[in-house]
Amino acid sequence: MAELTIAAIRSAADAIAPHVLRTPVLEAVRPDAVLLCKAESLQPIGAFKLRGAFHAMQQLPADCPGVVAHSSGNHAQAVARAARLLGLSAVVVMPSDAPARKRAAAEADGAEVVEVSPDSEERERMADRLARERGLVPIPPYDDLRVATGQGTAALELLDDVGPIDRFYAPVSGGGLMAGCAVAVHALAPECEIIGVEPSGGDRLAASLASGSRELLPTPTTLADGLRVRRVGAVTWPILQAHVARSEPVTDDELLDAMAFAARNLRLVLEPSGAASLAVALREGRGRCGVLLSGGNAEPAVLARALARPVRWQDGAGLPS
Amino acid sequence: MAELTIAAIRSAADAIAPHVLRTPVLEAVRPDAVLLCKAESLQPIGAFKLRGAFHAMQQLPADCPGVVAHSSGNHAQAVARAARLLGLSAVVVMPSDAPARKRAAAEADGAEVVEVSPDSEERERMADRLARERGLVPIPPYDDLRVATGQGTAALELLDDVGPIDRFYAPVSGGGLMAGCAVAVHALAPECEIIGVEPSGGDRLAASLASGSRELLPTPTTLADGLRVRRVGAVTWPILQAHVARSEPVTDDELLDAMAFAARNLRLVLEPSGAASLAVALREGRGRCGVLLSGGNAEPAVLARALARPVRWQDGAGLPS
Repeated sequence: MAELTIAAIRSAADAIAPHVLRTPVLEAVRPDAVLLCKAESLQPIGAFKLRGAFHAMQQLPADCPGVVAHSSGNHAQAVARAARLLGLSAVVVMPSDAPARKRAAAEADGAEVVEVSPDSEERERMADRLARERGLVPIPPYDDLRVATGQGTAALELLDDVGPIDRFYAPVSGGGLMAGCAVAVHALAPECEIIGVEPSGGDRLAASLASGSRELLPTPTTLADGLRVRRVGAVTWPILQAHVARSEPVTDDELLDAMAFAARNLRLVLEPSGAASLAVALREGRGRCGVLLSGGNAEPAVLARALARPVRWQDGAGLPS
Repeated sequence: MAELTIAAIRSAADAIAPHVLRTPVLEAVRPDAVLLCKAESLQPIGAFKLRGAFHAMQQLPADCPGVVAHSSGNHAQAVARAARLLGLSAVVVMPSDAPARKRAAAEADGAEVVEVSPDSEERERMADRLARERGLVPIPPYDDLRVATGQGTAALELLDDVGPIDRFYAPVSGGGLMAGCAVAVHALAPECEIIGVEPSGGDRLAASLASGSRELLPTPTTLADGLRVRRVGAVTWPILQAHVARSEPVTDDELLDAMAFAARNLRLVLEPSGAASLAVALREGRGRCGVLLSGGNAEPAVLARALARPVRWQDGAGLPS
């Protein structure tokens, strides 16, 4: 694949359709906004990552000896699941602080898990080594056009379902989800403002957009375990720079309040990373806002903590929609 | 409408399509079963009740002075929402022990709420009186063929999406949901075993199937506030008798364990009544099981209680599907 285009995203959507769920769009009504929430948390592994993994792995040659991936959790599960369904063997490199249930899910799908320290660079080095030593094909978590094209199918479905939107919010880690989605959104809604969401203290896309070059930041301390990378990808960066208007920080308290809002008003379980875009949309959304809810693999104790907090955002039920 | 038939259900599905969500079917894999879970908890008001309310109210004359309904909560919300969108005024009679947020949601949609004691007969009497005194048109929660036909569209969508199933589980209160769904299921999967689920100690359908006549039981003590009626409906009973093979009891602990399973493995918030069918399917499901998840309006404290329990049902991720 040479380019990340809307035509490539449409083609990917057809290719992966048998393996992914066409997730519903759930509405939350706010005084100044309608939040059109794409519930990727309902994918079979609980995250959008299945889209990119299937799209990348469907293009491997029939004699592929297996794949290797590195991930804090959801990409590992996605690669493990896609490998099982496509008849490939998979090795996944996960940090020692990855949620136990994400690791268990990858193992249950038959993947070999290799544990490394929580630094995101260390994961990449180990995955590279395994690829060289065992001849495995790397499936990058984000910095790959096949993967980003697959992730973009989520935004394509959203806009196909709801029509034009004024704003689009998605979480940014390495930028694969946002790169694919941004291309889809701007193809179908050229005037839409595209807004990234990053952990407070680790907003490397915001820093990069400000400086004009790809910035390296310290690993952020955040409940959003899916958003702990130190910089956006080299492949995704020029696409992000071309399409993303701004990227907004989100605190742990805001993540918890968004998880509680989702549980009460959308009846969805979201993990902290999966609630990041909703947190910012609740804070500042105006007009018709597309909101990508990226994952639902919450640790039960974290969800319980969110539910125990005082209600911050009002239930929108009954407001004019 | 004279009869509850698959043709009537298909026609209802077309009529209500602009107002209801085509909810996704989420899979849970168990050692002896695949649970094909129809997530009606994701409907805009958080419950399947929107289907029947819209179908009944779309057939009212243009000069209708307004509607009246009685409900422990979800039907009240459904009638309030449908009335607002169809430009009607609505009065809803709710028991004093209805969840506060269900009452608040009906009020937010512009309905007038009249509070009565928790007895289900008392609700009916008050709704009848309001209908007589104010000329309002009653929208029954279940004992009405228009309503049951509307509810049946949920099972129609499920079977259209997943094909034939071996078993179908749905909660039974007055029997409107089950009557409509049973007709749809048997039309599309004639050999399917149809299984009701009722609160332990209040299994009036099980008692009625055993005796051959419609039994009146005491109001059950159960966390499932949507399943606290004393007997199935007069209109729904012959349909239930013709289609439902058996009806199984479910305890509060089983409801909580099913809520926890749904949160962890389906990433769904379910209310106790909404988890009832899943609780029985987890306990005894075999083969391809359709499972109707009826509602997601859980009180946060009840969900937190479910999450704090030891894990009873294993995560099915990674098992062959």
